[in-house]
Amino acid sequence: MTATTGIPWIGFLSDYGLSDCHVGVCHGVIAATAPTARVIDLCHEVPPGDLRRGSALLAQAAPDLPPGVLLAVVDPATGPGAGTRRRALAVAAGGFLLVGPDNGLLLPAAKALGGARAAYEITARRYLRQPVSATFRGRDVFAPVAAHLADGLDPAALGPKVPIEALVQLQKPVARLTAHRLEGEVLSVDRWGTVQTTLEARLFEAAGLRIGDTLNVHCRIGVVKVPFGRSHADVRPGEAVGYVDSAGLFALARNTNSAAEELQLQPGDPVAVRLPATMDTAG
Amino acid sequence: MTATTGIPWIGFLSDYGLSDCHVGVCHGVIAATAPTARVIDLCHEVPPGDLRRGSALLAQAAPDLPPGVLLAVVDPATGPGAGTRRRALAVAAGGFLLVGPDNGLLLPAAKALGGARAAYEITARRYLRQPVSATFRGRDVFAPVAAHLADGLDPAALGPKVPIEALVQLQKPVARLTAHRLEGEVLSVDRWGTVQTTLEARLFEAAGLRIGDTLNVHCRIGVVKVPFGRSHADVRPGEAVGYVDSAGLFALARNTNSAAEELQLQPGDPVAVRLPATMDTAG
Amino acid sequence: MTATTGIPWIGFLSDYGLSDCHVGVCHGVIAATAPTARVIDLCHEVPPGDLRRGSALLAQAAPDLPPGVLLAVVDPATGPGAGTRRRALAVAAGGFLLVGPDNGLLLPAAKALGGARAAYEITARRYLRQPVSATFRGRDVFAPVAAHLADGLDPAALGPKVPIEALVQLQKPVARLTAHRLEGEVLSVDRWGTVQTTLEARLFEAAGLRIGDTLNVHCRIGVVKVPFGRSHADVRPGEAVGYVDSAGLFALARNTNSAAEELQLQPGDPVAVRLPATMDTAG
Repeated sequence: MTATTGIPWIGFLSDYGLSDCHVGVCHGVIAATAPTARVIDLCHEVPPGDLRRGSALLAQAAPDLPPGVLLAVVDPATGPGAGTRRRALAVAAGGFLLVGPDNGLLLPAAKALGGARAAYEITARRYLRQPVSATFRGRDVFAPVAAHLADGLDPAALGPKVPIEALVQLQKPVARLTAHRLEGEVLSVDRWGTVQTTLEARLFEAAGLRIGDTLNVHCRIGVVKVPFGRSHADVRPGEAVGYVDSAGLFALARNTNSAAEELQLQPGDPVAVRLPATMDTAG
Repeated sequence: MTATTGIPWIGFLSDYGLSDCHVGVCHGVIAATAPTARVIDLCHEVPPGDLRRGSALLAQAAPDLPPGVLLAVVDPATGPGAGTRRRALAVAAGGFLLVGPDNGLLLPAAKALGGARAAYEITARRYLRQPVSATFRGRDVFAPVAAHLADGLDPAALGPKVPIEALVQLQKPVARLTAHRLEGEVLSVDRWGTVQTTLEARLFEAAGLRIGDTLNVHCRIGVVKVPFGRSHADVRPGEAVGYVDSAGLFALARNTNSAAEELQLQPGDPVAVRLPATMDTAG
Repeated sequence: MTATTGIPWIGFLSDYGLSDCHVGVCHGVIAATAPTARVIDLCHEVPPGDLRRGSALLAQAAPDLPPGVLLAVVDPATGPGAGTRRRALAVAAGGFLLVGPDNGLLLPAAKALGGARAAYEITARRYLRQPVSATFRGRDVFAPVAAHLADGLDPAALGPKVPIEALVQLQKPVARLTAHRLEGEVLSVDRWGTVQTTLEARLFEAAGLRIGDTLNVHCRIGVVKVPFGRSHADVRPGEAVGYVDSAGLFALARNTNSAAEELQLQPGDPVAVRLPATMDTAG
């Protein structure tokens, strides 16, 4: 798939890490197959097999990429490849073709790009690197297919169409508005210790919470009161703040220090925000 | 700005780290705006908000890059973006246009490139990604502006001219020749434990110190005698040496081991070298 | 050297790490010299000076790269450059020109590419960055020479021809079939804790060992029985398995957990597999 500029872009995310040559070898395979393709490395430090984190990162990055191919390889239980029994997929969404395993990794990004339109199981051996190893499907299956698609291959040539509803889905993370609270969970923690939650900005609007309000946030260590601001720059060094982050999600941060450390929060931990009308009742 | 080769180069340095998609998203924004631009990643592992380290790395790398744009995002207190109250700048120096926050980060590189000729505050919203978030100015302000400049935009179109002398400057690190000593400080420690100081080669010439001399180096743990050599290869394994490094700065290294660990030195620590004439007086 | 596509590719491996600008500066030097060259970063997290690991990674990655230049900088005792007394080399092998120090780093890759055909000592100053520092030969010697070669320079122009047999060779790692055992050693451990050994698939064939056999593996903690499978997906979570990995080498893995941790294995440790005929004799 070629962007309107004529340059075939491939966004690439994996859990391969950077201490091996796995990422570089996939670049090599792409270069050998589609030399004019240009690869944008999104992240290769997804914790090994962490589908939750990998899919969230991919979904948040996708809308800012030039249309093209998204190559994503994160596969629990374990290592480069693994799971050879999982289907290999190409999924069309928006102006993109997403390539990766059928384990739920691709669908949040497809949704962020406007929704999956079609999916194909990759079975045509002629587009794979031979022999296909049992342990490095990034090199042998996903990277060469991404390169062929970047080079203009019709995804229908890869194999049989798969109904979207038959694709493996990740369990949807909690994010809901109940009678008394917004209930979500921690999606990620970045290198500044900022805690990104699953709670979208629209839930705060629906709940009647506004910038300037004091938020009562229930988390692991109890109830924490933080101002609802725009960024950590809204509070003094050492103070905590809640705000809608650059991905449109509610985040907890501290100016200068780590909110994750102070609040003892990790990905998957529940986080709730009390609604205004219930602010006077017990936590 | 286009190099003479016709390729628009963008050097990119940040404190975003590689465990998120921040760097990849900035690449995506650049690709979408200026698809023919080519990005050279300089370093994204600047410690969060460490202006001293970020500005030194940028200044040392800049002279070896092909003329073009330098995109630099390091902003204390904290995270991707932050400091939305700081001006966003484009600074012309040598054959380069430097883009980043008005916090002192860009000026040492501008100096290394021949000095800042002009600076512009980035205020023209049409060159930014919309909406501009409060927490990810790399994506929303600096990367798109770098892309537009790489694509040939006149920096004067970005906003009002700012006098060079009105730009925020970092405190200049200590590096001086006094009556009895060269006085400097530790600028950085690399992964081999080599200690780079602020002391430039010309100070050693001015002080009459020559290759082959024995140097009396005052540091945290006392006075250390090291030969003034050309590299760690001049001494036997385990031994320490002082030399002028590849950036033209005085460095302390040990063959095989970490000088930083042995001398207990960290960035910001004072380091002094006694002048020859005072060698017999007390440390 | 130009691949058939017309794009001059440069694969780049080093022990520079990513917390400095060393890698970016080498990219800059290449861009300034050969702007149309495209660099594929293979790995820059080779442990400092670890020739064993660096040469193995390079040899395993090389066959999957598009023909072109391979730039490799790993040099013990220490730092970017060092060892200025070592010869700088360009070695022709297959469709590649390999550039790096004469310390054994390049030869396993040359062998994997079909064997070294010719080697040249780099002495012609006109192709180097001036002045050549004593401590950053990647920037001053290897990167500019790689760029010139990518740009079409005849390697014979670099300096005198060196007989292949005069090149420094690494000690060959143990990997042999004896009367009773396959004897090898640990080559590397990846981020999943998978233990890659020096034992090639053909040794298992020669020994009459087949998929489905139970292997008696002698290692640091004693004798471990593991099934000979195709990947970690062949065993249940927590169980260990042996298989031929994507580089054609025998590996020990556990589904979900780290085999290296369980078996207390590190690079260089001996690993042996008993032959079928001796299975009933003592370990």
